[in-house]
Amino acid sequence: MSLDEPRRKPHERLAEMLSDDLGRVDALIRERMASEHAPRIPEVTAHLVEAGGKRLRPMLTLASARMCGYDGPYHVHLAATVEFIHTATLLHDDVVDESRKRRGRPTANLLWDNKSSVLVGDYLFARAFQLMTETGNLRVLRILSDAAATIAEGEVLQLTVAQNLSTTEDTYLKVVRGKTAALFSAATEVGGVIAGRPDDEVRALFDYGDALGIAFQIVDDLLDYWGSDATGKNVGDDFRERKLTLPLIKAVAAGDAEERTFWTRVIAKGDQQEGDLDHALTLMNRHGALEATRQDALAWAGKAKSAMTSLPPSEMRDLLIDLNDYVVARVS
Amino acid sequence: MSLDEPRRKPHERLAEMLSDDLGRVDALIRERMASEHAPRIPEVTAHLVEAGGKRLRPMLTLASARMCGYDGPYHVHLAATVEFIHTATLLHDDVVDESRKRRGRPTANLLWDNKSSVLVGDYLFARAFQLMTETGNLRVLRILSDAAATIAEGEVLQLTVAQNLSTTEDTYLKVVRGKTAALFSAATEVGGVIAGRPDDEVRALFDYGDALGIAFQIVDDLLDYWGSDATGKNVGDDFRERKLTLPLIKAVAAGDAEERTFWTRVIAKGDQQEGDLDHALTLMNRHGALEATRQDALAWAGKAKSAMTSLPPSEMRDLLIDLNDYVVARVS
Repeated sequence: MSLDEPRRKPHERLAEMLSDDLGRVDALIRERMASEHAPRIPEVTAHLVEAGGKRLRPMLTLASARMCGYDGPYHVHLAATVEFIHTATLLHDDVVDESRKRRGRPTANLLWDNKSSVLVGDYLFARAFQLMTETGNLRVLRILSDAAATIAEGEVLQLTVAQNLSTTEDTYLKVVRGKTAALFSAATEVGGVIAGRPDDEVRALFDYGDALGIAFQIVDDLLDYWGSDATGKNVGDDFRERKLTLPLIKAVAAGDAEERTFWTRVIAKGDQQEGDLDHALTLMNRHGALEATRQDALAWAGKAKSAMTSLPPSEMRDLLIDLNDYVVARVS
Repeated sequence: MSLDEPRRKPHERLAEMLSDDLGRVDALIRERMASEHAPRIPEVTAHLVEAGGKRLRPMLTLASARMCGYDGPYHVHLAATVEFIHTATLLHDDVVDESRKRRGRPTANLLWDNKSSVLVGDYLFARAFQLMTETGNLRVLRILSDAAATIAEGEVLQLTVAQNLSTTEDTYLKVVRGKTAALFSAATEVGGVIAGRPDDEVRALFDYGDALGIAFQIVDDLLDYWGSDATGKNVGDDFRERKLTLPLIKAVAAGDAEERTFWTRVIAKGDQQEGDLDHALTLMNRHGALEATRQDALAWAGKAKSAMTSLPPSEMRDLLIDLNDYVVARVS
């Protein structure tokens, strides 16, 4: 271990520990995003894949399989499956949200068009299903196709609750489970399944991924109000897009009639003026909404940690615990 | 057999012969298009499903399984899978083509929005993969996930060749294999696979579906120039949308420099004026492009018939042969 080891971030340490496997995943992704007939497909996919996300989801699968003692080849297929599903979702999300930037670059829908993003996303979904079918493991097929359905369901739910001030914390959780946690939990669960681990361990891996995903998304939504330039997030994006995320849901629920009038104007009606974001932050702080959101994120991280701690100790397990700590450290 | 029997169309006779199975498919579709959390999903899906397409693709699966002597329950799952993939594709197609009408009703992207069509389509894709996973048959999983990839690839290819006058018949065939024939051939092939038929029979079922799908699409593209009110198609839609379909590809390839100038203006540049469609039809007839397209459709129908004729005789087999004859009868 080098001297600067402790300063490196958990996902960087995971990436190093899994570097051989990650190399195989990248090679498989590159091979399978090719298309003999339609060169537009690898162009669009490469634009997104090579922008270099953190590869968090495929790392969860690789780490989970490794800590479960898996020594076959298929964790690589499953990790690539998970990344393909994620990439397909991003392509479709950017169409749905009319986004212009992703990972610091113009989105595919902007560089090419919405049509290409929709159809290349479909291609990647199909490629994901081909890849997971190659494992020959029906249980992972069930888990991943269930996850894909839950993701789409969460996204549709998010669409129908947008700008809706009566959105509850329960609905928010369903949306988050769909758009984020479903793929996290599938990613960790299949690692245990492919390794043939007993049901209680597989369940713990699912619980870890589920809670980590929820904590991850709550932190993301919190930083949208709490963030600074250091976090790389623009404060107020969700406010401007009138998204009912947890801090806002809590503030709205605690507000009096006058505050309700304010939220109706800026969120439900979308009539936003100079100073409204500052006033929203004032109201959130008045009701402790940001702090309560932070506590929720910490509670979910606690659940993730306790699920992972129930599993047999290993270096990989401890790194996954560190990763979970790191996710909430941004708001600790 | 009743007296009016001979006058009924082959897909109507198929629907009657398969009515019990089709009822099970409809019930399964209705069950699986539900969503506990997002009511928008069944709304959008029902709008399309209940508009009542001919259920041609699921019937192909049911008929194929039945003629192969299959007596298990999973042909119903596979038929519903095929219909879900088809419906998802239609939802995404209508977004990509900015369509306003489908099956005589306003499209979902018009009634709701593009976002709903994209995300509900994703949900139906995922539901399709869940359904086919339930069969536990890895070979059908491979066939159907391959088909889904081929469909998306064909659609992307179609996007990149649109308005491109140098599109060849070979490229056209690739697009058609993707957007239409891949699901037809998968639909018939899985019927044989699930029934455990030998490889040569499965191959014949694939060949039938492939050639039937190609003939079906060529006829459709031909009727866009040849049709009358009786066919329910508007003559010239593809021309106005500047699609490089087979009649146009043949006419462009046979044209002289002056004709090339015309095609460049109306198709490549999209500068269309009164009388251009009539002139296009004159050029097509001058070069026998419509007749040559008709001959191609008949040749593919011949291939489909010969593949099906190689299989053991049965009432169902003969109905599938009649269906194939009927597809090209519209241009015979």
